[in-house]
Amino acid sequence: MSMVRKLAAEAIGTALLLATVVGSGIMAQQLSAGNDAVALLGNTAATGAMLYVLITLLGPISGAQFNPAVTMLLAPKAEKIPYIIVQVIAAIVGVIIAHVMFEIDPVQVSTHARVGPAQWFSEVIATFGLLMTIIVGIRHKPDAVPALVAMWVVAGYWFTSSTNFANPAVTIARALTDTFAGIRPDGVIGFIIAQLIGATLAFYVSRWLLGPQASMADIAVEC
Amino acid sequence: MSMVRKLAAEAIGTALLLATVVGSGIMAQQLSAGNDAVALLGNTAATGAMLYVLITLLGPISGAQFNPAVTMLLAPKAEKIPYIIVQVIAAIVGVIIAHVMFEIDPVQVSTHARVGPAQWFSEVIATFGLLMTIIVGIRHKPDAVPALVAMWVVAGYWFTSSTNFANPAVTIARALTDTFAGIRPDGVIGFIIAQLIGATLAFYVSRWLLGPQASMADIAVEC
Amino acid sequence: MSMVRKLAAEAIGTALLLATVVGSGIMAQQLSAGNDAVALLGNTAATGAMLYVLITLLGPISGAQFNPAVTMLLAPKAEKIPYIIVQVIAAIVGVIIAHVMFEIDPVQVSTHARVGPAQWFSEVIATFGLLMTIIVGIRHKPDAVPALVAMWVVAGYWFTSSTNFANPAVTIARALTDTFAGIRPDGVIGFIIAQLIGATLAFYVSRWLLGPQASMADIAVEC
Amino acid sequence: MSMVRKLAAEAIGTALLLATVVGSGIMAQQLSAGNDAVALLGNTAATGAMLYVLITLLGPISGAQFNPAVTMLLAPKAEKIPYIIVQVIAAIVGVIIAHVMFEIDPVQVSTHARVGPAQWFSEVIATFGLLMTIIVGIRHKPDAVPALVAMWVVAGYWFTSSTNFANPAVTIARALTDTFAGIRPDGVIGFIIAQLIGATLAFYVSRWLLGPQASMADIAVEC
Repeated sequence: MSMVRKLAAEAIGTALLLATVVGSGIMAQQLSAGNDAVALLGNTAATGAMLYVLITLLGPISGAQFNPAVTMLLAPKAEKIPYIIVQVIAAIVGVIIAHVMFEIDPVQVSTHARVGPAQWFSEVIATFGLLMTIIVGIRHKPDAVPALVAMWVVAGYWFTSSTNFANPAVTIARALTDTFAGIRPDGVIGFIIAQLIGATLAFYVSRWLLGPQASMADIAVEC
Repeated sequence: MSMVRKLAAEAIGTALLLATVVGSGIMAQQLSAGNDAVALLGNTAATGAMLYVLITLLGPISGAQFNPAVTMLLAPKAEKIPYIIVQVIAAIVGVIIAHVMFEIDPVQVSTHARVGPAQWFSEVIATFGLLMTIIVGIRHKPDAVPALVAMWVVAGYWFTSSTNFANPAVTIARALTDTFAGIRPDGVIGFIIAQLIGATLAFYVSRWLLGPQASMADIAVEC
Repeated sequence: MSMVRKLAAEAIGTALLLATVVGSGIMAQQLSAGNDAVALLGNTAATGAMLYVLITLLGPISGAQFNPAVTMLLAPKAEKIPYIIVQVIAAIVGVIIAHVMFEIDPVQVSTHARVGPAQWFSEVIATFGLLMTIIVGIRHKPDAVPALVAMWVVAGYWFTSSTNFANPAVTIARALTDTFAGIRPDGVIGFIIAQLIGATLAFYVSRWLLGPQASMADIAVEC
Repeated sequence: MSMVRKLAAEAIGTALLLATVVGSGIMAQQLSAGNDAVALLGNTAATGAMLYVLITLLGPISGAQFNPAVTMLLAPKAEKIPYIIVQVIAAIVGVIIAHVMFEIDPVQVSTHARVGPAQWFSEVIATFGLLMTIIVGIRHKPDAVPALVAMWVVAGYWFTSSTNFANPAVTIARALTDTFAGIRPDGVIGFIIAQLIGATLAFYVSRWLLGPQASMADIAVEC
């Protein structure tokens, strides 16, 4: 699989993921007449469904990582930097696509404050769980990884107070939308630090849980 | 498999699909007391569930295409014209079935305006994604195609501003219902052009993504 | 598999199915503050989930038919009468279980009118689709039958004006609850006739769709 | 698999399960503007999704029991006591995690009354069904147990008046939250007795349903 095709798969997947997260948030808020729980249900259904589709389709091409925290820990060394650059750019493009579809300003700045220890703790839990889902899932039930990741995010949208960003590229891109899914720029760095802590924690806990036979080389290769 | 049986499968599937899209829209709007997000949730659940059922059941008989954009690109030459004619007629019959079940005028004309560049761009994205889902899905996980298509549409109902028609037969038929799912006739031609652009784009992008070994002959045959 | 165990499986399954249909209807209506679309979403999720569970668990024991229309067409001759008797009794017991759980009168009479050609036509479509799902599903993807039936019913709750009873035992039992899921006794006979018409139609259409190699003996045996 | 790793898997799983049940309840209630049916939909989606993830990931390590009623009946003798102790402690930790994420008092006492015969009868039914799902599911379709358990709970949240606690550790822990998912301490003992009755009933009924070849030794080992 050539590197260009891999990067293209990461780009298409990450852009469609963000278009879905942000676009469904806009649609949900326009229609829900102020009932944010109904809006979050629509947002949840769309995001979970899209994750299942994108990981199933693009996993065999690029690994369907769409997430610098995943790439940092599990991708081969030579892929880390290009993957992460493409993910961040594509995530921003995805947000712009959503804005264009809904005829609002293409680039915006979020005013939705998401700061403080409770939010950061939520992101540690969210990213810990997401990475554990990926690492343990690849070992125990690789065919189910698309559904597992989708279902982790469905749960995470509801049980964490931060609504489970769990992804630095997603976090950066969502700072650029002043809609349901946005995050004010001053919240970005705290979220990313929390995400990297959660991801690293998951890496070591999962390796230990899987037992001595699970070297990370294996897991990286299987990705 | 005889041609008559194939066309019958396309007819039954397309009619039930449209009866579901339009019927669940009517039910949802009658019950939702003006909360359109709740109505869209019901519409989404019904459409996704029905797509999974119909493609699983009828895929082995006719390919379960139900969509002229799919047929145009992926069906064998001799099947293109008859399939498309049957799809359009069956789609209209499906809309009439929904109207009869809910005791409203069998044939209507929609007054729901869906025009303009944002809507057309949405349909390009929606049909691009649907066709990519089908083409890449057939190659990477053929058993999951019914679930993949269902989940693409679940996401598309929420993240595109046009609510993911992505199907010329569906678009024509939905012009004939003045309910939740309708589209005013002056919007039909723009939607269909956008859909054909999105589908063609998906065809070439998917072929390239899948690499040189993926000739379209293969993909058409696998359908 | 002894006949007693088969009948017990049909009884447990049919009773839990009806407890779910009626119980989730009561819960939904108590909580939904008059928004019937939200109530129907809860009712739909519970019924779809329970059908998936019960057919997966009990299919290998009794066929998990839970439905006289299915039994009449697909069960071996010697099982038809005892199965149908058990299904009707267990369905009524299931309704009583729901009432006891929610502390309301154990036996009631519905006042929810469901009569007229539009409702009957809905039941023909609903039962046609359910039986086609079972017969074609058993042939094309037997492992998926629990999910297929669940998804047919999820769609049917929304796209038919009768909300997809599609089952004579269910229809009789739901006459005995004056809650969300009820049907006034004067509507029962019309529904059952419509269901038998839809089921019979599905039987012949499915046999023809599946081609000459599909004798009904095969399909009955596979059940 | 070392005992420490097994207990760690039970601890992580039970804590994440409770964080999800309680956290999604808080989120749902904060957003739903008093429409409790919408709140329960969010709570249901999160809990079902998380159960699917946790049982798939941790089943191969510890059995993913998370439930003293399951452990009591199906675990090897030597594991019963340590598993149950870990489950109860982890469940409480999970509730505290949810509270910290939502910035409310870490330890609380519920004021949500759940007592009386109707509630207890609901818990008998809920736990009977959950255990039957596990025992019969392991025999008939072991790969589907994560989805089966998730779907049982999705249905149970709606069709039982007690909303399907069905788990003594969950019941104890939920006494320590004064939010949507709570249970007043005076309701705990009644729930646990009902749960043990339902579980025991399911054990004998399932064994009989599965026929003479199904000794409990087999089932325990397969767990």
